[in-house]
Amino acid sequence: MGEKEISQAVVARLPRYFRYLGELREQGVERISSGDLSVIMNVTASQIRQDFNHFGGFGQQGYGYNVDFLYHEIGRILGLDEEHQLVIIGAGNLGQALANYMNFEKRGFLVKGVFDVNPKLVGRQLRGLEIMHMDGLEHFIKMHKIDIAVLTVPKDSAIETAKLLVLCGVKAILNFAHVDLNVPEGVQVENVHLSDSLMKLSYNLHRYEEAFGKKTSGGGGKEG
Amino acid sequence: MGEKEISQAVVARLPRYFRYLGELREQGVERISSGDLSVIMNVTASQIRQDFNHFGGFGQQGYGYNVDFLYHEIGRILGLDEEHQLVIIGAGNLGQALANYMNFEKRGFLVKGVFDVNPKLVGRQLRGLEIMHMDGLEHFIKMHKIDIAVLTVPKDSAIETAKLLVLCGVKAILNFAHVDLNVPEGVQVENVHLSDSLMKLSYNLHRYEEAFGKKTSGGGGKEG
Repeated sequence: MGEKEISQAVVARLPRYFRYLGELREQGVERISSGDLSVIMNVTASQIRQDFNHFGGFGQQGYGYNVDFLYHEIGRILGLDEEHQLVIIGAGNLGQALANYMNFEKRGFLVKGVFDVNPKLVGRQLRGLEIMHMDGLEHFIKMHKIDIAVLTVPKDSAIETAKLLVLCGVKAILNFAHVDLNVPEGVQVENVHLSDSLMKLSYNLHRYEEAFGKKTSGGGGKEG
Repeated sequence: MGEKEISQAVVARLPRYFRYLGELREQGVERISSGDLSVIMNVTASQIRQDFNHFGGFGQQGYGYNVDFLYHEIGRILGLDEEHQLVIIGAGNLGQALANYMNFEKRGFLVKGVFDVNPKLVGRQLRGLEIMHMDGLEHFIKMHKIDIAVLTVPKDSAIETAKLLVLCGVKAILNFAHVDLNVPEGVQVENVHLSDSLMKLSYNLHRYEEAFGKKTSGGGGKEG
């Protein structure tokens, strides 16, 4: 389709549209105007129209968007009309939490295998999957046509592990390790740096307190 | 200090600067030019100078930045010179993983309590903390001067729980629930929507394959 180079800022907003449209759809809403959608999503209607125009617009003027159609179109654009085969690398707490995270599966991201180097973890069951040793990774990736790896290994081994994943043919990495990976062009990386999110929160908390004074806990107005 | 309204795009880059400077510092590097820093961080030197200018610049022309000074200044700007008291709401897999996530503690974010409504979880030990029932939340937040809550409850109860947190005086929420919270002005929210990250990754994977052709085994899957 005629989708041209879209900025990552627009791409980052697509999952949110998809989520809201999914909810509207579940509520049985058939049509929605950009104005109503903008109120629900707390963005401007012009932002919505601009974003959608990157993909041909979707809607009909004065008539609103067909919720079901729009939901499926955005899903298709996000690649959710195909299933994805995932491996999780690192079976520590976070890896285990992610293996159990049902939202992934609901969207067609299927966790096919979990890998670790820790002999205490290898062989243990995790939601019906046996945790495997990294030695078997390359074979497994090829056998199961894995296209996405979720990386939850410690920072110190993340870069080496990412290199190995790329060598094995993985084309996309969801990186939770607190380090930037260096991957060849054509390999997609999406970072989830949890400490960074917390620091950003801390920044905003402090700036707000500096600007408006510290309101100690419990001072908040209880609404009636 | 004279820090004025800074765009969230700049704020989002501060933790990354902080991380790289921390690494340089550990390696014993005392000074670095914006040019060298730009190479390591894979951003332009002009981006670095522009970002730093929001905070007064930090550096000396032709002389480079003092790594230790810059590290501490950015840490201070991020509010990391103070300790933060956290609670984790939701002791499921993700909540447990986060309670065990040492990076938080290293940055001065101290997990003081973990809460859940599930009677099977309440009373269990989690890294030296007893999982508590939500009934005790308000008292606990006031007693321990909690300023940040990490929210890992299911989507359906997230909005109600966030309201409760705000009533109890929590001023910042790190939200992992896959829903947008509606909080009063002055309460900071940072969202970590894991499914959104995975969808963005999926988008980039598909666009790359469309643009340059599928190179590997990957893919397959159903048609919608």
